[in-house]
Amino acid sequence: MQSGGRSGTRTLDVMSAIRAKVACRALGAGDRLPSIRSLAAAMGVSPSTVVEAYDRLAAEGLIRARRGSGFYVSPTIMPPLALTEVEPRRDREVDPFWVSRQSLDADAAVPKPGCGWLPASWMPEAGLRRAIRALARTEADLLTDYGSTRGGLVLRRLLLARLAEDAIAASVDQLMLTGSGTQATDLVCRFLLRPGDTVLVDDPCYFNFRALLRAHQARIVGVPTTPTGPDVARFEQILSTERPRLYITNSALHNPTGATLSLATAHRLLTAAAAHDLIIIEDDIFGDLEPERSPRLAALDGLNRVIRIGSFSKTLSASVRSGYIAARADWIEHLIDLQVATSFGGSSPVATEIIAKVLVGGGYRKHMEELRQKLTRTRRDVARKLQAIGIEPWLMPRGGFFLWCRLTGGQDATQVARAALEDNVVLAPGNVFSVSQTASHFMRFNVTQMNDPLVWDVLRRALKAAPK
Amino acid sequence: MQSGGRSGTRTLDVMSAIRAKVACRALGAGDRLPSIRSLAAAMGVSPSTVVEAYDRLAAEGLIRARRGSGFYVSPTIMPPLALTEVEPRRDREVDPFWVSRQSLDADAAVPKPGCGWLPASWMPEAGLRRAIRALARTEADLLTDYGSTRGGLVLRRLLLARLAEDAIAASVDQLMLTGSGTQATDLVCRFLLRPGDTVLVDDPCYFNFRALLRAHQARIVGVPTTPTGPDVARFEQILSTERPRLYITNSALHNPTGATLSLATAHRLLTAAAAHDLIIIEDDIFGDLEPERSPRLAALDGLNRVIRIGSFSKTLSASVRSGYIAARADWIEHLIDLQVATSFGGSSPVATEIIAKVLVGGGYRKHMEELRQKLTRTRRDVARKLQAIGIEPWLMPRGGFFLWCRLTGGQDATQVARAALEDNVVLAPGNVFSVSQTASHFMRFNVTQMNDPLVWDVLRRALKAAPK
Repeated sequence: MQSGGRSGTRTLDVMSAIRAKVACRALGAGDRLPSIRSLAAAMGVSPSTVVEAYDRLAAEGLIRARRGSGFYVSPTIMPPLALTEVEPRRDREVDPFWVSRQSLDADAAVPKPGCGWLPASWMPEAGLRRAIRALARTEADLLTDYGSTRGGLVLRRLLLARLAEDAIAASVDQLMLTGSGTQATDLVCRFLLRPGDTVLVDDPCYFNFRALLRAHQARIVGVPTTPTGPDVARFEQILSTERPRLYITNSALHNPTGATLSLATAHRLLTAAAAHDLIIIEDDIFGDLEPERSPRLAALDGLNRVIRIGSFSKTLSASVRSGYIAARADWIEHLIDLQVATSFGGSSPVATEIIAKVLVGGGYRKHMEELRQKLTRTRRDVARKLQAIGIEPWLMPRGGFFLWCRLTGGQDATQVARAALEDNVVLAPGNVFSVSQTASHFMRFNVTQMNDPLVWDVLRRALKAAPK
Repeated sequence: MQSGGRSGTRTLDVMSAIRAKVACRALGAGDRLPSIRSLAAAMGVSPSTVVEAYDRLAAEGLIRARRGSGFYVSPTIMPPLALTEVEPRRDREVDPFWVSRQSLDADAAVPKPGCGWLPASWMPEAGLRRAIRALARTEADLLTDYGSTRGGLVLRRLLLARLAEDAIAASVDQLMLTGSGTQATDLVCRFLLRPGDTVLVDDPCYFNFRALLRAHQARIVGVPTTPTGPDVARFEQILSTERPRLYITNSALHNPTGATLSLATAHRLLTAAAAHDLIIIEDDIFGDLEPERSPRLAALDGLNRVIRIGSFSKTLSASVRSGYIAARADWIEHLIDLQVATSFGGSSPVATEIIAKVLVGGGYRKHMEELRQKLTRTRRDVARKLQAIGIEPWLMPRGGFFLWCRLTGGQDATQVARAALEDNVVLAPGNVFSVSQTASHFMRFNVTQMNDPLVWDVLRRALKAAPK
C-alpha cells in the first residue's frame, strides 16, 4: 500500500478530485463517496490507488469509513485546514508556569533566551538519525510491546557505568528508568510527600521545581544559593526550625545560577541532613556539561538518603525522552509500583533504544567534548555582550549554558520579559526562580539561544522601556 | 565515525584486544590504557579506529575517559556482562500490581494469557517500520526539542477527526496529548481528587484503576457490571449514598468483561451523574477494536462532565507511547499546567510523529479491519477450547481480545494463577479486578496470547492442582 513514483502521484490526483468535489459542494457533509470500483474505472486508476486515497482523506478527517458500508463525507463542520494552533496566552500571570508555557509553545522561529535547552543544531543530530535508522530494523517486540518495569537493560547498564564515573556505586536493583527527569522527580515526590509537607529548595531554583511542588501541595522553603552551593549556616538553621522532609537541588551547574557545590559544603549538608532525617533529591540533569567532575552528594552519601535523578534531554534529545532514578533498592521497589500505577511502565522502549544507541555509537563523547568547548567560548562572548548593555553575570559558571545576571540599571525583570514577549522574544525573569521573590532585578540567559541579532535589539529596547 | 566493512572489523579487533588484556589482568582496575597514537601504531590501524573502539568500550563501562587525560580501566568491580536482570518477585501478594509486574517483567518467551496487549505479530509492524524510516529523515528540531504543551498538531488533528467518528465534536482547545492513556487518567485524577475522595469504578474493572486510585489515596467503591454496562439501579443508589466525585469506566469493550454500554443505560447514567454532580472518565482505550460503533458517554454528554481518554497502545504500539485527553477547554488549560509541572510536556514529539505517520500512511485501516476479523475468529476458537476444560465465558464480547470467564470447577483463580506462574505462564485471576473481591472463581483471558500449546498444558495442570 506504500505509495511512490507514479502510483503516488495518482493517489494525490484522486485525493485532489475528492477535495475539489467537497470544496465546490458537489459532495456535501454526510454524502456517500463513489464506490472504490466505480471511481477507479472513472479515473482510470487501480482500485488500490482509490483505497489509498480514501484512507488518507479519512486520516485527514475529510471523509469517514463506515465499517462495512463505504466512505462518507464527514458530517462535522470541521474542515481540517481550519484547525489552527492554540496560541499561548500572553495575559497570564508571570508565575513559574509562564516561562515553560511561553517557551514550549512559541513558534520555532521565536528566539528563546529564556528557555532551558540547546538549539537543534547543537545536539548530536547525526548520531540520532543513525540510531533511528537502526531502530527501523530492530526486532518487532521492541517496536510494539510495553517495556519492563525498570526500563531497557542496555540503557540501565550504560547508566550504571556513568554513575560509577561520578563515584556512585549503584547496583542493578538501585536504578530505574522513568519517562523523563521531571517525571523522576515527580515520582519521588509522590512517594515521599503528603500535602502540607515542607520541602526545601535553593533560592533561586529551577522554576519548575516550584510548579511541581505546588502540584504536590507542599510548603516550599528556600535557602539562598552561594557560588559553592547553598548557604550552609542558613541550611542548618532551616533544618532545625522548619523540619523539611525533602531538599531538591542541583549540585553541579546549579540551575539558574551555575554554582558548583564544594566538597566542604557537601559534607556539612549531609551531616545536617543525617541529624534531621532529611532526604535529598540531587537532580544531575546538567552534569554532563561540566568540564571536569565536581562533588556529588550521592557519591558522598552512597545513595542512602540522597536520590540521584537525571535525564538525556539537555545533551542528547528532549524529544526522545527518558529519565532515571538511582536510590536505595527498597525505595526503587516502591517507586516501580507507583510508576506502574500512574504510567503503566516507565520510559518508552523505543526511546531507551534510541538513547542507548546514540550513547554507544561512538562519536557521542567527541560531540560532548566539542559541545563543552563551544559552550565555554559562547558563555564568554555572551557575558561580554550582556555587560556592555548593563547586564552583569552574578558568576561565571564552570560549564553549562546559563548565565544568571543582574540588571544593573535596576529595571524590573518581569516587566522586561513582558515587553520582550510583545516583540516575540521569550526571556526568563528572576522571580520565577525565587521562592522569596527577591530576584526581581535578575534574569537567566541561555547563551546558546542568543545568536539572532533580533534578540539583542529587543533586549535593549525592553531594558529601556521597563520601569525601574 | 560510523563503522562499517573493514574499518568496523578493525574496531572490533581493537576492542577484543583490550578486553583480553583486562580479562588476563595485564590491565587492572584504574590502569591507564595505551595512548590512541601508540596503540594505533602497534596494531597497524588508524587512530580513528582506536578512538571508536575506546568510545565503545567506555560506553560499555569497561573503560572510562578522564576528560583531557586519556582512558583508564574502570575502577569499579562491575564487569558489564555480570549485570543480570532483576527477576520479578514471585512471592508477592496477588494484588492489582501482581499481574502488571509479572506481565511487564516476564521474559519475552513466557506466555502471558493474563496480559493486556497483543503479540508483536498482530501489530502493524510494516507501518511502524515505514514511519520510523521516515522519522530518520525528518527535520532536526523534531528529533531534539521538547514538544508543545498540547502535543503534536498533526496527531491532534487526526484525533479530532476520530472523535468526530464517535459523534464527539471537540474543538482544538478541548484536546491535549499525554505520555500514555494511564498518564492521562492519572493527570485527571490529580486535577480532580483530594486524598479521601470517593471514586466509583466498575466491579470488575481494569486492575490498574485500583492501583492508580490507591496512589491517589482515594476511597474506592464498585458498581456491578452487567452485559449492557453498570447496574443502573445500584449506580443511582451509590450516587445518593456514597457521593462519589468521579466514576472511571470503559463504555465499549469493557475491561475485563467485554460488556458494551447500551444507549438506555448511558442516558440513565448521565442523568444520575448530572443530579449528583459526578464527573466521569470514559477510557476508550479498546474502542478501535469494536466491529461497529456503540454509544459513548462523551457523545451524549458533549464533553461537559465526561472526560474522554484514549491511547494507541492496544492497536498501534505500546512502545511508542502516547495518550490523549478530550475535555472541557477550561479543564484542559489546567491539565496542561499540571502536565508541565509534573512531566515538563506531554507526549514525546518523536512518538507522536511516528503514530501520526502510521495512522495517515494508508494500510492502517486495512490492518484494523483484518485485525477485527482475526479477533472474532480467535475469540470463538479460544472460547470453545476453554469451555472444553471447564472455563465458561461470562459473555461473548462483540470485539476485543478479552474473555472474562468463570472456573466452573469452583477452583480459586488466585491459586490457579500462582500454580501457572510456577510453570512460567502469567494468568490474570479475577480478584485483581474486583473491588468487592467477589471474583475469586473468575479469570480474564487474552485470546491472542494463547497460541502456545504449553499454555493449555499448564492451565489444565493448574486447574487440577488448585484447591476449590
